[in-house]
Amino acid sequence: MRYLEDFAAGQTFGSGRLVVDKDRIKTFAAEFDPQPFHLDEAAAHATMFGGLAASGWHTAAMTMRLLVDSDIKPAGGIVGASCDEFRWPRPVRPGDELRLESEVLEVRPSKSRPNQGMIKMRTTTLNQDNEPVQIMVANLVVLRRPGGGDSR
Amino acid sequence: MRYLEDFAAGQTFGSGRLVVDKDRIKTFAAEFDPQPFHLDEAAAHATMFGGLAASGWHTAAMTMRLLVDSDIKPAGGIVGASCDEFRWPRPVRPGDELRLESEVLEVRPSKSRPNQGMIKMRTTTLNQDNEPVQIMVANLVVLRRPGGGDSR
Repeated sequence: MRYLEDFAAGQTFGSGRLVVDKDRIKTFAAEFDPQPFHLDEAAAHATMFGGLAASGWHTAAMTMRLLVDSDIKPAGGIVGASCDEFRWPRPVRPGDELRLESEVLEVRPSKSRPNQGMIKMRTTTLNQDNEPVQIMVANLVVLRRPGGGDSR
Repeated sequence: MRYLEDFAAGQTFGSGRLVVDKDRIKTFAAEFDPQPFHLDEAAAHATMFGGLAASGWHTAAMTMRLLVDSDIKPAGGIVGASCDEFRWPRPVRPGDELRLESEVLEVRPSKSRPNQGMIKMRTTTLNQDNEPVQIMVANLVVLRRPGGGDSR
């Protein structure tokens, strides 16, 4: 488990891999994003996606699963306050195998809350061809080491 | 159905309402965001959330469902390319009733693709006390009216 003091700009983290299931693309979309390009192969061909694609929010949710299972393990959990950047440069297709590359961009203690701070982290979600499918720069709330002080 | 030419800065849209189900908070989290504050009431009490809260990605997914069901109906569907701003100012709790307020901020034709353009839209997700739980400024790809030209 890493406290705020254990993070530093430039640190990088990888992740496991997650294969995108075709039926889960459709059931996720049926509940949260019921549009033809996420629901049905034939209907998707006539759309700007040119074929079945995962909802961007499904991609975001799968990314979160990979983050939680990764070695990042911030003290207090992975708690996002906001994103400074969030893009989906290309579609996620059935059978794609996703993985993450994360880099800490900034670490800063909170001025108003002495027991916590924020880290800014860029997480890129890549497919099996190493093409980015999602790029997110998130601000995460991280607890400081109890007892205070920087132990470095 | 609205083509790019039918959107203008300043337009506002509402939505239906969606009640946040406690068990769905937990099953969504078990699949995509398995952390104590999203999975179990007792465990959540000891965390910075102080009680069970929905995953931010669950809130984003519910917001998308309300957007798809709303009257916005862009030609080609609701297709997000990116978000300029994305914040979760407070937790979503079991039983919360969510609704949206959306405002078009900007409309611009594509220079490279004559059949489409982008709209920038702020969507605020509010709970039953009219408190914002998510603020998103998204850039959406929207098709232009076939045959070209601005019919206004």
